[in-house]
Amino acid sequence: MTVAAVVQANPATPAPLRARRALIDTYQQPVVYMRSDCAVCRAEGFEAQAQVEVAANGREVLAILHRVDAQWLGRDEAALSEAAWEWLALQGGEAVTVRHAPLLESLKFVRAKVYDRKLDYPSMRALIDDVSRGRVSDLHLAAFVTACAGGRLDQDETVALTRAMVDVGERIRWSHSPVMDKHCVGGLPGNRTTPIVVAIVAACGVVMPKTSSRAITSPAGTADTMETLAPVTLDIATMRRVVEREGGCIAWGGAARLSPADDMLIRVERPLDLDSEAQLVASVLSKKVAAGSERVLIDLPVGPTAKVRSSAAAQSLAASLGAVGAAVGLQVQVLQTDGLQPVGRGIGPALEAFDVLAVLQRHADAPQDLRQRALALAGALLEMAGRAVPGAGLALATRTLDGGQALAKFIAICNAQGGLREPPRAAHREVVAATIAGRVGAIDNRRLARAAKLAGAPRDPAAGATLLVRLGDTVAAGQPLLTLHAQAPGELAYALAFVHGQSPVIAIDPP
Amino acid sequence: MTVAAVVQANPATPAPLRARRALIDTYQQPVVYMRSDCAVCRAEGFEAQAQVEVAANGREVLAILHRVDAQWLGRDEAALSEAAWEWLALQGGEAVTVRHAPLLESLKFVRAKVYDRKLDYPSMRALIDDVSRGRVSDLHLAAFVTACAGGRLDQDETVALTRAMVDVGERIRWSHSPVMDKHCVGGLPGNRTTPIVVAIVAACGVVMPKTSSRAITSPAGTADTMETLAPVTLDIATMRRVVEREGGCIAWGGAARLSPADDMLIRVERPLDLDSEAQLVASVLSKKVAAGSERVLIDLPVGPTAKVRSSAAAQSLAASLGAVGAAVGLQVQVLQTDGLQPVGRGIGPALEAFDVLAVLQRHADAPQDLRQRALALAGALLEMAGRAVPGAGLALATRTLDGGQALAKFIAICNAQGGLREPPRAAHREVVAATIAGRVGAIDNRRLARAAKLAGAPRDPAAGATLLVRLGDTVAAGQPLLTLHAQAPGELAYALAFVHGQSPVIAIDPP
Repeated sequence: MTVAAVVQANPATPAPLRARRALIDTYQQPVVYMRSDCAVCRAEGFEAQAQVEVAANGREVLAILHRVDAQWLGRDEAALSEAAWEWLALQGGEAVTVRHAPLLESLKFVRAKVYDRKLDYPSMRALIDDVSRGRVSDLHLAAFVTACAGGRLDQDETVALTRAMVDVGERIRWSHSPVMDKHCVGGLPGNRTTPIVVAIVAACGVVMPKTSSRAITSPAGTADTMETLAPVTLDIATMRRVVEREGGCIAWGGAARLSPADDMLIRVERPLDLDSEAQLVASVLSKKVAAGSERVLIDLPVGPTAKVRSSAAAQSLAASLGAVGAAVGLQVQVLQTDGLQPVGRGIGPALEAFDVLAVLQRHADAPQDLRQRALALAGALLEMAGRAVPGAGLALATRTLDGGQALAKFIAICNAQGGLREPPRAAHREVVAATIAGRVGAIDNRRLARAAKLAGAPRDPAAGATLLVRLGDTVAAGQPLLTLHAQAPGELAYALAFVHGQSPVIAIDPP
Repeated sequence: MTVAAVVQANPATPAPLRARRALIDTYQQPVVYMRSDCAVCRAEGFEAQAQVEVAANGREVLAILHRVDAQWLGRDEAALSEAAWEWLALQGGEAVTVRHAPLLESLKFVRAKVYDRKLDYPSMRALIDDVSRGRVSDLHLAAFVTACAGGRLDQDETVALTRAMVDVGERIRWSHSPVMDKHCVGGLPGNRTTPIVVAIVAACGVVMPKTSSRAITSPAGTADTMETLAPVTLDIATMRRVVEREGGCIAWGGAARLSPADDMLIRVERPLDLDSEAQLVASVLSKKVAAGSERVLIDLPVGPTAKVRSSAAAQSLAASLGAVGAAVGLQVQVLQTDGLQPVGRGIGPALEAFDVLAVLQRHADAPQDLRQRALALAGALLEMAGRAVPGAGLALATRTLDGGQALAKFIAICNAQGGLREPPRAAHREVVAATIAGRVGAIDNRRLARAAKLAGAPRDPAAGATLLVRLGDTVAAGQPLLTLHAQAPGELAYALAFVHGQSPVIAIDPP
């Protein structure tokens, strides 16, 4: 008996299964559902929760196997979760083959990092390439993120990681120079300066094609807020057209495939709540390089309940951003800003959009803190771009805003992106009042953000919170402190219950 | 408007859902399936893949939420995966409440370890308690296991971890002393000495209540092999009865709740393939302390494809086992053994059982390596127990085996456990032959184990492989090297294809 004959007589691959949409949302985790008693499960000896490679439609995805014994699934079917369905671009009925996940060579680099060895660019590149293709399981991603935390990635490795994250995705190149960009290291609710800054900078003739993210852990990302004012899901060709015409755009970065591994890493960093400095630097800078930016201003709010809590941490982060930026060809400038309390009044996509509009339209009651921050950032960018001499940026930015050129530019950008629109208003509102008289002693940014999320933000763009007091304000008992906005009464009640929970969102010091 | 009135008017808790069995096997990961448009999902603002706490039947479990839009699930239902269904001991139709997972206090200890801080007993205890209750997500377990790898747990922390793992589970206490135990640090296929060793030691009047595990990554655990010979799922009362009568037992440890956190940690260690020394020591010793053992002999096979690959690694591990053992009240002795090649001939539950029976029955063709290993271990245990003076253990063990007392004791133990039975034989077999003449130069334990698993072991107890040559044997071209056994032709073909894959399972050096 020859071995070849045996293998031919018993082909190892059973007949393919038929694709079926499971209509089960598992967020970004692809899952394939197969009957325990289907031929493939039996032949391959698949266990539940096994890592499998699902191939269909000329594509493949790494998925988790869930074994079904219910009747809704046929023995000749493979049902796919929404993430897997979209990844494979299925219609239904396609032939699906499922096999044991191939051993990933790049996992040895995860192990190497766990054992504290240094990773060079080729290792990072191989690993990040697999990450961006969805081949690395969440468990391995968690191990990698953990192994990089606590300062275990040095500067060379951070540069290698940043380069790798850029190199595995698309990269936009612009015909103008310099291409300006800004970024805010999150953690401060309502800090929605971007639309104002882009409008001012572009109105001054400086190119600023801004791609922003949707909310990850916050009640609103810039893309969520901007989407209540204009379409933001622009492909690269559309972005290019908008920027050619108006000198700037405010688009959702996720529509282009810029630094695709970043989203995968964030998927596990978020539940782990690990904000490793190196991962943060690589995440921010890789998106900027991929977006074709050359000079980046980073807004770094510092405060006890902001993402960066101490001046020392801010300085370390700023140094790292500068050095890694230089290594990947980015000129980076960091502006430490006050992170003690939220910016503006609204927290949530539409509520923040109203603040943005009020500043651009120079309303008498526009939030002054948002205006001042936007002007400071725009001024610094105008100086970095060489449009204003050092020291003259703020004045130019202020003139551009107050002269109405910024508003006109904003409207033009919105129209170029598909049309300016009116942000929605929530169906239900409740005021939260002070229980005692006194002085506003502290505002917990994190708990305030959580309350806005419980009210439905950013899923419901109209949901969120409006802050009615500032630090240091004197309030009477019964005076409104904030308003909660929600589309469903249950969500409103949930957010209210949270606000009245253990530790206060807004602390009133008795007089 | 008072706040209390608002909260009363909008109760935050929607009506409970009704429990339904999803009939979806997600291995040990509890999953709850809810309709996206059900009142609870909407009110709570649940996202897919959210960590939620599911309460029913007076119990609770941490689960992952998967949102369903298919018609098989009603809007008033919560369907549970098998793991969640069993954990909550449901029948169907019970009221189920689902809420956001409470913030786990103990996760701060995971973070502390990630940032390389030392954990004391109370921290370990709090964390391991949550782990054992299924409250810690796989991602956080992966972060913890990663943070402990690479030598980042010192000896105090390993002791603290071991104690914590014991203290959160059941603990058996025996009326006899000394209570002997053995353990093999895995990685060597076919090394199934336990049933022989227990039979010899118990036949000499020394108490040895052995609890063993099922396979985790190997083609057979001792419990899997023993189960082909007698029932092994014994509760503590039954184990006690068997041991009172026969002085020994060979039971599955998973039936008792000994060191329950261990299984949870293994669930993530396995896919991560992280064999941290500290985790290994805590895993092995916590099970022994919980099982009431006092003196433990550890069989430590060393070889290039065994779990422990170098003598240096073996010595480090032995020192750690001894020191941590002493700290938790265990007398530990480590026996380094040859880990170059598999032990005996069979690999897979029933095939290994035939080897065990051949040794006990003193068949002329019984595998001599298995016999010699079992005798050496039994001899050392008899000396540790004070039953033989130093140097006389091996002779006593040999006399007990050759005199038939070990076989008689084994049969008596099997009968006490519920009856001796005949191991099954596989429906399909194929011989793998040498493609060239030469000398057997190397046997890859890991790939051989994988071939046996692809053939169906341990799920099909009859499946696996029989090794027909030993290291150093001279073979002719076409001479059989091993036989693969499977219950399904597809699995046989799969295992064959693997054996004939890239790198050889058995390497033949040409003459």
